This record gives sequence, structure tokens and C-alpha cells, in this order.
Amino acid sequence: MNILITVDELCFTGHVYRKLTASNGRCQVLAAALISAALCLSLTSINTLRPLHLTLGYLGADDDQQSLPLTPETQSAPFGLNWPGPPHNATLLSQWADFLSLDYTQHPFDTDRLAPHLTTNEEVIWEIQRLHMQVMTSLLGGRRHVMLLDFSTSENKGDPAITVGEVALLRRLNVTVVFYCSIFMCSDAKLKEAHKISRNFAPSSLMILLHGGGNLVGYPESDILRKKILNLFPDFQSVLLSQSIWIRKDHEKHLNMCRELYSHRENLTIFLRDRQSLGLAQEHFPGTKLMLMPDMAFGLGRVPRTMPPTVDIVWIKRADDESSRYKVPEMPTNLSVQVEDWWKWTTNKGRTPMESSFLIAFNGLSFLQRGRVVITDRLHGHILSVLLGIPHVLIDNPPYFKLSSFRRTWTAGLSNTVLVTTGKEALEQAQQLLQRYESSLPSIMTYWKANY
Amino acid sequence: MNILITVDELCFTGHVYRKLTASNGRCQVLAAALISAALCLSLTSINTLRPLHLTLGYLGADDDQQSLPLTPETQSAPFGLNWPGPPHNATLLSQWADFLSLDYTQHPFDTDRLAPHLTTNEEVIWEIQRLHMQVMTSLLGGRRHVMLLDFSTSENKGDPAITVGEVALLRRLNVTVVFYCSIFMCSDAKLKEAHKISRNFAPSSLMILLHGGGNLVGYPESDILRKKILNLFPDFQSVLLSQSIWIRKDHEKHLNMCRELYSHRENLTIFLRDRQSLGLAQEHFPGTKLMLMPDMAFGLGRVPRTMPPTVDIVWIKRADDESSRYKVPEMPTNLSVQVEDWWKWTTNKGRTPMESSFLIAFNGLSFLQRGRVVITDRLHGHILSVLLGIPHVLIDNPPYFKLSSFRRTWTAGLSNTVLVTTGKEALEQAQQLLQRYESSLPSIMTYWKANY
Repeated sequence: MNILITVDELCFTGHVYRKLTASNGRCQVLAAALISAALCLSLTSINTLRPLHLTLGYLGADDDQQSLPLTPETQSAPFGLNWPGPPHNATLLSQWADFLSLDYTQHPFDTDRLAPHLTTNEEVIWEIQRLHMQVMTSLLGGRRHVMLLDFSTSENKGDPAITVGEVALLRRLNVTVVFYCSIFMCSDAKLKEAHKISRNFAPSSLMILLHGGGNLVGYPESDILRKKILNLFPDFQSVLLSQSIWIRKDHEKHLNMCRELYSHRENLTIFLRDRQSLGLAQEHFPGTKLMLMPDMAFGLGRVPRTMPPTVDIVWIKRADDESSRYKVPEMPTNLSVQVEDWWKWTTNKGRTPMESSFLIAFNGLSFLQRGRVVITDRLHGHILSVLLGIPHVLIDNPPYFKLSSFRRTWTAGLSNTVLVTTGKEALEQAQQLLQRYESSLPSIMTYWKANY
Repeated sequence: MNILITVDELCFTGHVYRKLTASNGRCQVLAAALISAALCLSLTSINTLRPLHLTLGYLGADDDQQSLPLTPETQSAPFGLNWPGPPHNATLLSQWADFLSLDYTQHPFDTDRLAPHLTTNEEVIWEIQRLHMQVMTSLLGGRRHVMLLDFSTSENKGDPAITVGEVALLRRLNVTVVFYCSIFMCSDAKLKEAHKISRNFAPSSLMILLHGGGNLVGYPESDILRKKILNLFPDFQSVLLSQSIWIRKDHEKHLNMCRELYSHRENLTIFLRDRQSLGLAQEHFPGTKLMLMPDMAFGLGRVPRTMPPTVDIVWIKRADDESSRYKVPEMPTNLSVQVEDWWKWTTNKGRTPMESSFLIAFNGLSFLQRGRVVITDRLHGHILSVLLGIPHVLIDNPPYFKLSSFRRTWTAGLSNTVLVTTGKEALEQAQQLLQRYESSLPSIMTYWKANY
């Protein structure tokens, strides 16, 4: 079994809220004193991980006498700092002990063996965050610096949520970002600047990270930018974070460019976020390291509902090329349903593109919380609903099948989530979810009858 | 001691999330069976209230076998459904037992005896919600129907937060809203409609509620609308919910109109939300029932931070007539500070004005969460920060003194909240708060150095 805890992480475990960039001498001394005990504890059995975490948390908190605690109720962690612990189910953990201790970089296509068997949102989030942490720690191989290129401030909500997940993971890995650019800011001039910065680092200390998403092959402009970036940093290890592949009809020419770009890239690892995309990558990108790895937005962790719902069903209906053009059925009069895409659910701008990403992701969470349950034809309508614990229905999108491939690979075990293919089925299933979870779903608080 | 628990409330206690309008026969039977035991328990001592609540919650949940629970982690209550229980401090509760069992409608100026002695956010919220529930139950006197008039969808965030608090309180009181209108929708035609609806009700079954806020006397258009409303429903008991009074220089003529409008109104009760406003009301509005009652936005309850902060300090600086025109000092280079009013932090529209109010209040919460700590010259920057548990500095606004009067009356005991009068002091105090709560404040997650 790999022991991945570093001194920094021990300190960090002690203070989820400690300012991440701050160093703390006393904490490091304490951590050094504790580390052998911690190693023993974590070796005894996998399910000691949670008590270990709690114990260190307590000791760490005591260590900092000059700083006052807020009351416990005020300490629920914001997203990105919310890391579910392993399941309390000892049988499950011992059953899967071998799998849990694998080095997945040596078993890159076996990462999804446990996830689809997990039945609660917390377990799925734990497993996916565990994979992210374990694999990235392994790939970083001791590097403490990265560049994060091509992230997104799109109002599609999904890409910014992925950005937040990536940033949260990097913070958790205690890695320094020495350069970043959002997709529209990765100009040639900025990339030149990035290249200049990279000269301060040896390949053994800097890694190039490319933003995940659903734009591999399917959105040529993204591949064209990645081509520039990959050719700019040939000597550095690069990771293209979790992506879906969409091969559109009549895009043979672009597919050929992608074949050339992504094949036989010795220093590149590509994460594919579902088995269908992995299959396509294996077919078209030979000679490059591929890994089956879940979507990065899970880095947000569990998010509590903050706002009471205002309708029974929020229905995300996308209107772009990825939609399967299903029909929305007539609604029963006893249901309040809000059908819209979240593109137009606009967000206030942050001071930097990265802050904007955080605000857009948060705004996506607010969009969904209006519904007691959710229907979605967007993948991140699914993923953010899993994070929020909102029961929901996914409508698949043939011929891309982005949603069903993802669900089959990672979230198939969640019983509060249903996959369908038509609008009619979606409505029926959403009504069943409303019934099944009636007693535990928050009620609609706004008054509707007097509609003034 | 008054026992205010009804059968409906017992059922509701069992399911914070039960759809509030739904009836449940089995629950009512169970509640009837439990009610005598509950009465005994709640009489034994005040601090049995919390265990009682928990016990009923558990029994209630078991009662509903056909409806599946979500996992516990997904059940944190959204705002408006988040009601802190009484403090665990038995000494405090027994010390204040006499005060806690008062009928405040008989002691309308004594409501603030406990609140300023409470030291945690949870305690203050509990006490204020308790006053709202107790007094409104008493004033409703068995009425189950209300009209809620003149509420707000203003981007000032405070008024919508008050609206949400009012709606949450009405839901908790299990009262039906038979008519509502937001300020811009309370046209003569709509009010005529409201008047028509009121004919279906006897004065003993319908109450008229006027939205709270900070616009009594200070904002003539609000008084003019209230004049219309009060003259339209002379036979019904009305409550003007918690307000501040601001008497502007050279507004003698409008003050005279207000004197005439609000004095000797037999069927009106006015809630004043601070002692200064109460004093002004006593001076200018003789012959009308006045009560010292805290701001309605506390109906939101405790709200967890959802988003990690992106700056050290968010500073709300208003630019309207209520500002004291203080100067913002130069910022130290090692601090990230965002200075702006939240007026321009715009919100997506809901399908109705009431839904818009909820969304704007939520958006106000998101504005504040960007800061590790907050500086505010707006009263609801203070109140929402108390609800979020964010340490903060209030800058007073002479000659109105809306903030200091409110703080002195209700929140003076909170040590994570500081009152100052200048921008320079505000910055110093905010820096001290950052230091004092360093270990328990969430860290900034966004990377700033690479600003692209």
C-alpha cells in the first residue's frame, strides 16, 4: 500500500481552514513527531483512515492557541474544502482492499472497478476524489509546481466547475501554480510569457496541466490551442485532465489532425472520463499514455443546499449541437416546472478569470437548488446534482452519449439518479423521485397562488 | 409559560423537509398521541426543548415508511428552514426563565433584555427567531390567513432578505398568504383586488402584514403606499413589520404626514427594530401599539458558507444618502480587499417577484462569502454576516445611526463583530479579525499571483 501523506498534508489535515500558503513551524515539528505513529496507524487497516484524520485534526487545532476558533456550526467547509472520508462500511473496505491499494498509473484502465458499485453520493465523491489524489500524486512524482492552461469562464457552468475542482485538487496536493490562463487569455503573447517562466524549472520540478472538459476532438478550437501548448513544452510532463471525446460526423479532417497531435506523445498523459471515450482514444491515439479518470468537478466535494427550492422540477435543456432534440412533454397542472438552459443564468464577473470560474460554478449550484428535483441533459447538471445531493434524472444525448457513458462508468450505483432517453420518461421519473423522497426533500417555501 | 406547539407544528418538527402544505393523516394521529407527553416534557424545564425536538424528529421520520430518506449529509436545511435550538447553557436558560416566558405583547419595550448578552451567532439567531415566533403567534390570535404587502425585489439585498425572513416565518407559523404584492406591483388595481379578496374573511381570521425595512419616514414613497393600504383595510388588524425610522433634515412636511398616518391607529401594531427608532415612534406616533422587535431577515437562520473566499476582505461601501461619506484608506499590499456596493451585484430574475426576492437574498450571501472577513456600512451586510458566521466590522452611519442602534439593541454581545465609525478603524479592526480567527477562517483557494 502506498503512503502518500506528506508533512505538508499532515499540517493541512490539522487545519482544513489554515491559509494554504502559510507555513507553520510548530505544525511541522508536531507533524514530524507524529508521522511515524501516523504511518503505523494507516498501515493497520484501511478503515483507520477516518479516525486518524480526526485525531490529527484535533491535535492540530490545539496547536494554534493564539488563534480563536469560531463556533463549530460556523465551520462547515466551503466547496473545494469538503472531502468526504471513506465509507463507514468496513466490509466494503476490506472487500476492496486490494483495489484500494493499487498504483493506478500501472493499471490505468481499471480505475472504475469500485465507483459504480457505490450507492451513496458521499461514497462516490470520496472514491473519485481518492482517485484524483492518488493518481496525481503519483504522476507529479515529487514536482511542486504546475502550469494550469486553458481553463474556462464559460457560462456553461460545467467548465468552470471543472476549473474549481482542478484548483481545489492542486491546493489539496499543496502544489504551486506558477502560471495560469483561461482559454481566451492563452494568447500567443501569454504563452510566450509562460514559456519564459518554464525556463526557471527543470522537467523534474514542473508539470503542465491542461484543463479537462468535454471538448476533445469535438471542439476543434480547443485542440488547436492544445497543439500550440504541447509543442511549446515538449520537455515537460503534461497531463490533459479528464476529457470526453466526441467524434462528429464529417469531421474526418480534424480527427486526422487530432490523431497526429495526440498519438505517440511520450511526455503526455490523457485522462478520459468515461469508457466510451477511452475506447476512442485507444483507437485513435496509439503510443500515448491513457488513463480512465473521472471528471475533475468532483473536487468541489459535497455541497449543502443553501436555498429552499422554488419549483418542483428544474429542467436543464440545452439548445446546442450536443442536444438530442428530444421533446418536452406537456406538464401536469399540479407540478411547477422550470425548463431552461443555464447558459442565460448569468454570473457577476470576478476580478480575475479564476475568480469568475468560482463564481460561475457557484451560480450553477444556485440554478439547480431552485428545484426539489432536477432533470438534466447536461453532464454537469448530473455531476453538480450529485454534489448537492439532489435526486435527478439524466437524459442521454445520442449520438454523443456523453451522459450515459459517464454514468455507466462512475455513478451507476446511485439510486437517487435515473437515466432515460426521452422527455416523457424524464418527467415520469422525476415525478417518481418527488414521491420517493417526499419526506426528505426540502419543501417549496415561496407562495405561488397569489402571483403578484 | 406559554405552550405554543400545535399539532401542525409537531408534525412539521418531525419533518423539517416535509412539504409544508401537505397534510399527513398518520402524522396527525401520532402527534395527537404524543402531545400530552410533549406538553409534560416541555413544561419540566426550558432546556428540554432541544431533546424534545430531536426525539419527535426521530419518531416522525420513522412514521413515513413509503418515503425514502436521503443520506443524513444531504439533509442540512436550506435557509428559512434552519432554526437553531436553544443554547445548551442550562444556567443561562434558568437565569432568564422569567424573561423567556413573558408575553411580550404585554411588555412590548422589553424584548431586547436577553439578546445583547448572547455571545454566539447561533444564540442570537435563536433568540431573535423565538421573539418573532412568540409575538406573531400572539398577535395572530388564531388567524390562519394573512396578506403580505409591499415586499421588495430591490438589489439592495437587505429588503429581499427581509422578505425571505418574513416568508419563512409565515411558513413556520403555518399561515396561508391569500394575497401578496411586491412594492412595484401594489398598484391601485391590485390593491382593489386585494380588497375584494379581504371580503371573504372576517377580521378575526385575516391579518394585514406590511413589509419591514429601513424606510419608515425616511423614504416618503413607502409611507404613501402604506397610507393607501392602511386606509383600505381599516377593520383588519395590521402589523408593520420591523422598521427603522430615519428623520431627514428639512422633511418636516413629510414627518407631519407620518404623524397623522401612524398615530392613534387602533388596529395597527408597528415593530421598531432598534431602541432609537422606538424612541422616535413613541415621540411621534402616540396612541398606536408599538413593539421593539428585531429585523425579519433573521428568519433565514444560520447559513453555511458554500464558496471558499477569494479575497481577504469584502468591503460593502454604499454610495447613497445613507452613507456617512467616510474615506477608504490606502490598502496594505499584503491584503486583497474588494471595495464595492452590492447594488451592482445583480441577480437573475425569478418567475415571480417572490422568487426574485429569494434569489437576490441568496446572491447577497454569495457576495459576502467572497471575503474571509467583511467590512460593511449596510445593516444587512451585518445581519447576513451574522447568519453566515463571517467575522465582520460595521461602520456606523451618522446622523441616521441605523447600524449602531441596531447593534446596541440586539447583537452587542457578538465578539466576532466590531463597530467603528471611520474607514481607517474599519481596516485595522478587519485585520485584527483576520489574525484572531486565522485558524478557523477558510483560506483563499483561488491563485492570485499569476493574474491571467
